[in-house]
Amino acid sequence: MYICIEGIDGAGKSLQVKLLSEKLKKCGYKVIQIKEPTDSEIGKLIRKLLRKEVNNALMTLLFAADRIILSEKIKKLLKKGYLVISDRCLWSSFVYQSIDIGEDWVEEVNKYALKPDITIFLDVDVDVAMKRCEKKEIFENSSYLNKARRKYLQLAKKHNFIIIDANNDIKTVHNEILKVIAAKIQKKE
Amino acid sequence: MYICIEGIDGAGKSLQVKLLSEKLKKCGYKVIQIKEPTDSEIGKLIRKLLRKEVNNALMTLLFAADRIILSEKIKKLLKKGYLVISDRCLWSSFVYQSIDIGEDWVEEVNKYALKPDITIFLDVDVDVAMKRCEKKEIFENSSYLNKARRKYLQLAKKHNFIIIDANNDIKTVHNEILKVIAAKIQKKE
Repeated sequence: MYICIEGIDGAGKSLQVKLLSEKLKKCGYKVIQIKEPTDSEIGKLIRKLLRKEVNNALMTLLFAADRIILSEKIKKLLKKGYLVISDRCLWSSFVYQSIDIGEDWVEEVNKYALKPDITIFLDVDVDVAMKRCEKKEIFENSSYLNKARRKYLQLAKKHNFIIIDANNDIKTVHNEILKVIAAKIQKKE
Repeated sequence: MYICIEGIDGAGKSLQVKLLSEKLKKCGYKVIQIKEPTDSEIGKLIRKLLRKEVNNALMTLLFAADRIILSEKIKKLLKKGYLVISDRCLWSSFVYQSIDIGEDWVEEVNKYALKPDITIFLDVDVDVAMKRCEKKEIFENSSYLNKARRKYLQLAKKHNFIIIDANNDIKTVHNEILKVIAAKIQKKE
């Protein structure tokens, strides 16, 4: 099962991916934790470019390229029975890159990217997210985060994301995620 | 004016781009010689991957990303009055990457790439091309080159390439290219 945790910066994705992975490992599952962009050469280039103002079409193509390599890896892991838990996935491109070039092109470019079986959207108020953000990247300003949050909520409706209130404390959010994932895993088993 | 010289490996593109650029410079034109993939970080990654067997969708995305950066540069050069002469352009992706993933997707992915004003297709017989090829890259085997040549001829029809017989000697081919380009430049002036 390929599980993705999505959300704006400051929603607590990385921490929740880590906590969920650890918990599921303790329960005896084979778990692999991944993230986007990856640590591949393309992923490194993306991180470097994200520090500057860059062309969104260029970023869409690079994210999609990074994702094709990752998708191949995920497929192999799923075949081996792993739970793959990801910090971001193609939905992040739908949210961040589509802002000035349109969702249709972003979707078409990502034609060969694997879609997660379950997406959990950690929904956090923008002011809460801003307070949590320490590092300063170009994505982190209030109007940008507001746009991104609205786009996530649209996608959540269209693609059946599970929305979890991420304004709560770490433990509460973790327990809610766990409840959802446990139910999905049991249903599958 | 953005001029591209296309053709299968062994057609003599690089040499003809060089000869044409030198000649036009001597005639007093401002000329910039470029190539695809470029020498950018993405271009270097493409060259590395071309040595292995890789996913064509991945290559399509990387070539398109490299091309977006290049397209921005070309636009600036054209505004400054340069003749930009390129060894390959987006048509190479239409030929080489579309083989197993279809031309429509390659076209869509390259939506933001600049199309050349003139494309010269150096048409060479595959056996002649094979004899000229010294280095051994994955693209260079006879059935592959045959497929590529047929694809180029289809594109030539659809997108009005100028076809030049590249089985001839270097000087004859150069003179033919020069005749075509001189006519186009004079028409524009």
